[in-house]
Amino acid sequence: MKRLFDIDPWKLKTTTLHKEDKRLQESLTAIGNGYMGQRGNFEEGYSADTHEGTYLAGIWYPDKTRVGWWKIGYPEYFGKVINAMNFIKVGIEVDGHPVDLATDNFSDFYLESDMKTGVLNRHYTWKSASEEIEIRFNFKRFLSIVDKEIAAIQISAEVLKGNPAIKLTSALDNNVQNEDANYEEMFWEAVETSVEKPAYLTARTVPNNFGIDRFTVTGAMVNQVTAVNYTVSSSESLLVAEEFSGKVAVGDTVTLNKYVAIVTSRDVGDSEQRVQARQLVEAAAHKGFDQLLVENTEAWATRWNKADVKIQGDDEAQQGLRFNLYGLFSTYYGEDSRLNVGPKGFTGEKYGGATYWDTEAFILPMYLSVADPEISRNLLVYRHNQLDGAVHNAQMQGLKGALYPMVTFTGVECHNEWEITFEEIHRNGAMVHAIYNYTNYTGDESYVLNEGVDVLVAISRFWADRVHYSKRNDRYMIHGVTGPNEYENNINNNYHTNRMATWTLEYTLDTLAKLSHEKAAELAVSDEERQQWQDIIEKMYYPYDDELGIFVQHDTFLDKDLTPVAELDPENRPLNQNWSWDKILRSPYIKQADVLQSIYFLNDRYTQEEKQANFDFYEPLTVHESSLSPSIHAVLAAELGMEDKAVELYSRTARLDLDNYNNDTEDGLHITSMSGAWLAIVQGFAGMRIVDGRLSFKPFLPKQWDSYDFKINFRDRLLDVHVAKDGLSLSLEEGESIDVLLWDDVVTLSDSIKQPLK
Amino acid sequence: MKRLFDIDPWKLKTTTLHKEDKRLQESLTAIGNGYMGQRGNFEEGYSADTHEGTYLAGIWYPDKTRVGWWKIGYPEYFGKVINAMNFIKVGIEVDGHPVDLATDNFSDFYLESDMKTGVLNRHYTWKSASEEIEIRFNFKRFLSIVDKEIAAIQISAEVLKGNPAIKLTSALDNNVQNEDANYEEMFWEAVETSVEKPAYLTARTVPNNFGIDRFTVTGAMVNQVTAVNYTVSSSESLLVAEEFSGKVAVGDTVTLNKYVAIVTSRDVGDSEQRVQARQLVEAAAHKGFDQLLVENTEAWATRWNKADVKIQGDDEAQQGLRFNLYGLFSTYYGEDSRLNVGPKGFTGEKYGGATYWDTEAFILPMYLSVADPEISRNLLVYRHNQLDGAVHNAQMQGLKGALYPMVTFTGVECHNEWEITFEEIHRNGAMVHAIYNYTNYTGDESYVLNEGVDVLVAISRFWADRVHYSKRNDRYMIHGVTGPNEYENNINNNYHTNRMATWTLEYTLDTLAKLSHEKAAELAVSDEERQQWQDIIEKMYYPYDDELGIFVQHDTFLDKDLTPVAELDPENRPLNQNWSWDKILRSPYIKQADVLQSIYFLNDRYTQEEKQANFDFYEPLTVHESSLSPSIHAVLAAELGMEDKAVELYSRTARLDLDNYNNDTEDGLHITSMSGAWLAIVQGFAGMRIVDGRLSFKPFLPKQWDSYDFKINFRDRLLDVHVAKDGLSLSLEEGESIDVLLWDDVVTLSDSIKQPLK
Repeated sequence: MKRLFDIDPWKLKTTTLHKEDKRLQESLTAIGNGYMGQRGNFEEGYSADTHEGTYLAGIWYPDKTRVGWWKIGYPEYFGKVINAMNFIKVGIEVDGHPVDLATDNFSDFYLESDMKTGVLNRHYTWKSASEEIEIRFNFKRFLSIVDKEIAAIQISAEVLKGNPAIKLTSALDNNVQNEDANYEEMFWEAVETSVEKPAYLTARTVPNNFGIDRFTVTGAMVNQVTAVNYTVSSSESLLVAEEFSGKVAVGDTVTLNKYVAIVTSRDVGDSEQRVQARQLVEAAAHKGFDQLLVENTEAWATRWNKADVKIQGDDEAQQGLRFNLYGLFSTYYGEDSRLNVGPKGFTGEKYGGATYWDTEAFILPMYLSVADPEISRNLLVYRHNQLDGAVHNAQMQGLKGALYPMVTFTGVECHNEWEITFEEIHRNGAMVHAIYNYTNYTGDESYVLNEGVDVLVAISRFWADRVHYSKRNDRYMIHGVTGPNEYENNINNNYHTNRMATWTLEYTLDTLAKLSHEKAAELAVSDEERQQWQDIIEKMYYPYDDELGIFVQHDTFLDKDLTPVAELDPENRPLNQNWSWDKILRSPYIKQADVLQSIYFLNDRYTQEEKQANFDFYEPLTVHESSLSPSIHAVLAAELGMEDKAVELYSRTARLDLDNYNNDTEDGLHITSMSGAWLAIVQGFAGMRIVDGRLSFKPFLPKQWDSYDFKINFRDRLLDVHVAKDGLSLSLEEGESIDVLLWDDVVTLSDSIKQPLK
Repeated sequence: MKRLFDIDPWKLKTTTLHKEDKRLQESLTAIGNGYMGQRGNFEEGYSADTHEGTYLAGIWYPDKTRVGWWKIGYPEYFGKVINAMNFIKVGIEVDGHPVDLATDNFSDFYLESDMKTGVLNRHYTWKSASEEIEIRFNFKRFLSIVDKEIAAIQISAEVLKGNPAIKLTSALDNNVQNEDANYEEMFWEAVETSVEKPAYLTARTVPNNFGIDRFTVTGAMVNQVTAVNYTVSSSESLLVAEEFSGKVAVGDTVTLNKYVAIVTSRDVGDSEQRVQARQLVEAAAHKGFDQLLVENTEAWATRWNKADVKIQGDDEAQQGLRFNLYGLFSTYYGEDSRLNVGPKGFTGEKYGGATYWDTEAFILPMYLSVADPEISRNLLVYRHNQLDGAVHNAQMQGLKGALYPMVTFTGVECHNEWEITFEEIHRNGAMVHAIYNYTNYTGDESYVLNEGVDVLVAISRFWADRVHYSKRNDRYMIHGVTGPNEYENNINNNYHTNRMATWTLEYTLDTLAKLSHEKAAELAVSDEERQQWQDIIEKMYYPYDDELGIFVQHDTFLDKDLTPVAELDPENRPLNQNWSWDKILRSPYIKQADVLQSIYFLNDRYTQEEKQANFDFYEPLTVHESSLSPSIHAVLAAELGMEDKAVELYSRTARLDLDNYNNDTEDGLHITSMSGAWLAIVQGFAGMRIVDGRLSFKPFLPKQWDSYDFKINFRDRLLDVHVAKDGLSLSLEEGESIDVLLWDDVVTLSDSIKQPLK
């Protein structure tokens, strides 16, 4: 655990520049607006260890994959979010000396990420080596969530001592590389620069051998400066800059307002980009920094009003939870159905890819409650649009139907390990569950009956081809899979995979029965197919152990040495940093919920006894070394009345990044697990479920807390749920009255209700 | 199938230059002397598709590995045999035009690899574009098996028409790269060149980050020319050359004798290399081309006398078999215990590494019979010398004892796939079996009792740590392995692995009982260890199926869809060129003997019924897509009296490379499977075994053949075994009389014996 920022309900703030943890500090102070984002780098640069990273949603490159021995079906490239134009760059020179906190004297340092408004603030007092000059620098920047193409930066320099010459060099710099490039290649080439105001720079991704479209990106900037004068503009390959300089007297302040517009070929054709970027940036400059900031702050307030969670009596938890919501909203707010929630968002490069099954399994359930339904629906549309890619993936394995990718930008798989690419196919189940989840939560069947069913049928066709029939057992089986527990692979009859496969077939058959004639004709599911699916449903093999009364994770799991985690010497943990892969694979230790993932997904299909027996068997073998693990276990522990266990598991997810629990946040934030704490509170502590189309709660209050409070958007209503020592209060903040279930009793909520806790 | 050379009992010969199969032709005409070797490249160069490759035994480079996601225990580098100094190079210019068969007119082409003498011969008549000049070129080269550092090349050019200026540029050229370099890096850097006669060139492998010693190599040359004059020497980085030129009249012949000596830092320190190389090359030149050739031819005759196999009535088989022996002897003849038999020998780059378990399992059994015992013993010493590396490999996985590597130069594992590196651990069994095999064959226990037992104990300690105890089953198990069938991996309780593990423990305990006190004290195997090993022997789990009466390949093998190979549409074959890896892994199809490998290794421990049941079950599921597969099956089929099956399987191995069955010989020869045909004949058709220390035969004669004949070196005797329609004849060619078993009857062989076949 490492904590770099003070506890504060709305802010990350510190008065320390952690030079040895600069990358970690940069990850935690990343900002984003769903369209673009960047790590908390310094405008003026930093000459010691740092990772400068700016990322644009949907702008990527197919990096030649790295693999030992090629085999048929392997993806040819590993798609990477690429480090893009550094547009925050403003070099600062004082009497010819570049200001650099890595080497210079400074005091009164302050760094703050304001989650309420989306603004990154920083200031410090800089002293020359001779101590004859002192300047107070102030930095403020944000990426507008109102005008997504716009970034605004304000830098002021107040001279406290001396009469220095100050030079500001504001640049757009596309000389950037990915740290994770497989072959240390550059992914950008120059197209055009212009110093004519507004100056602009256009860059293009380099050619590739995989038929992937190349992207062009244009940045344009307007720099407004007081107290010093424009001197010169310059441009070179992949860089354009404007310089401002002049002598500044004691007491005077230089202020630079830098406006940037970023336009990409995803939205604007190459020939229009320059015009568009210049128009946008001029409009922003005309509006002015303060007005942009006001609008942005209001927009964030609207988001928070729909989504905020308040925790009384635990400021750490409060900060952690808001940090997670802030991280997610900065990454994705559903405006563009071509986008998704990448594992690092705009905060780093690790893992590549835009999309993992995390989105469907862990992110969507939260967005359903904290934002408008369109936002969640767009996540489904994203997968629907990529159905062709999923069909391609199945074909690459010689299979029918659709196999959604583990990692992708386009729908085509680009993960580079066979045990994941070919085998972790339970992800297909998560795709279907998301459709079910959306439909069940919103009550809106239009998506599943018109678009969703395309995905359902394609995935069902995949399962029907991927199973095999074992004559000796008179059962269908699924061999050669990796379950959610990635600490094993190439296992046979993973319970979760088998269960999600038959559940998908059931859900698809149910949905087919509701289709319009036109849609049914379009899909052309034959009677033979239906019959085969029904046969698979009836004869699927599920490993089960009578003695233990549990579903078995896979065929030979119980043959392992089943020593529980608690008996392991703690110095072995985390296993993935201490054990060889061989030892991990053979161990019984579970990275994240596997059998329990089925029980979480298909919660209403299991008895309390089944839930308890499986939880009691598997949780003690679980090391929770995936950031996605503790939350699911917390939800189930809460359901089983194991409140202390639920709280313990919750605490592992709430401040994962803020306290750098996994010791890897320097690489970027764990964006796709940021919904975990929210799920633990809302589905866990508050026991929220949808039961026969009704919101249902069975809340408890963690002993450590005074109260907690969250918002739920549900079928045109906005509810506030408040759980305190003196009881549960529900308030209907928007929409018509509604029946809800409180501890299984139907209660009509018109205005507000209060009931004691049970 | 593709056949480039004529059928001939002792030669590969052709009058066609196969431009579209140049690489294949180069692989097949490779020559080597165990110390160095090279593909059948042309001295004068070739401007179209070719793979120029010269390789020096034990000279390698640790290439940075390529892997998707790093995990603990992965090897850091993949060791590569490196393409080394091209010392055959002799550029030929006629009136300024470089002679190049890729583009020029020529006739009367002839290419011949003479297996009896180890000489590569080539000639053609070259015509200028104007047809005004015609020259008859003749090339002869060999690598001396008498003076291992020496290569000799003779080139003659007889002018048939015109009065051309001929220029010969004889060079040592170290500007060479590996085609299989992971990051397209150059592995060599220049040290020194000198044009002072004898000219020399010293190169050194570039630095590496893995602490691997760098190699230096010095080549020195003497060029003796008639009919034209020396003109100039030149040198540049990594190249030294001597030019000879002059006008040549019709009827005159230019002859160049080029002698090269190659000395490396493996044998000679850097400061001595130049002196040594120059002395060696001068001595060779002094001896002269013809004398070197005579000596070399005699040495090959001695080898053939000990090892030849004659087949009457099947010239194709005859050629194939000699080609295999020739390929093996060119690669390894046991002079240097630091060397081993690499998968491509000196014929290509694929697979990297110097050593696979193939040596112990497939090569050693043949060398035991066809060469002196020291040659086989050196293969054991090689592994003994690398024991520290094997201990290191086990430690990397967090395990005790020794894990011999899948691929190595030093004993340290350098294969780059976890499912092989960590999992294909049955290879440890092959190491032990080789020691057993040597001891059993030679009757010499001195090796196992003094050196071999070190390996036995270290491997036993590995197995004892690698098994786990399953309480629920009261059995020891081995999870997470890859058996010899690499078309599955990460399986549990692979019969072969489990069996070889307990067999090793048994053999080690037996051996410990025979040790001297000193040796026993040195090894310090505790009573507790012995007890634990005994416990594992008694409680090891072996998957077995009562109904089928077979050992099951691994825990869930019988749950697969067990459709036999014969029912597969042939267009699916070979699977590894048509199916995705996913499909292969889930299929029941077996790449090479797995359960049957145990039955081959531990042949006397199984009943005839067990052998038959397992063969009948597994062979129909086997696709034999490893070059190592058919021979083992042929031996077992022969033992079971399935003569036609044995011959069919034999035919797949005998001309594997000559007829390019696997369509990949262009990459190099399958050196480590070259013993396969020999094994199929000697252990298969002739049924040779060692029974209680006696040679035993139960031969049959394939219907297609008139007779076959092979030599056996056994305990200071040289026997000739002749199997013909009219019976089995044994002749004792060297050594004292000996009792042998013929169809289980003891017969004393003093001079010769003849018995009818049964």
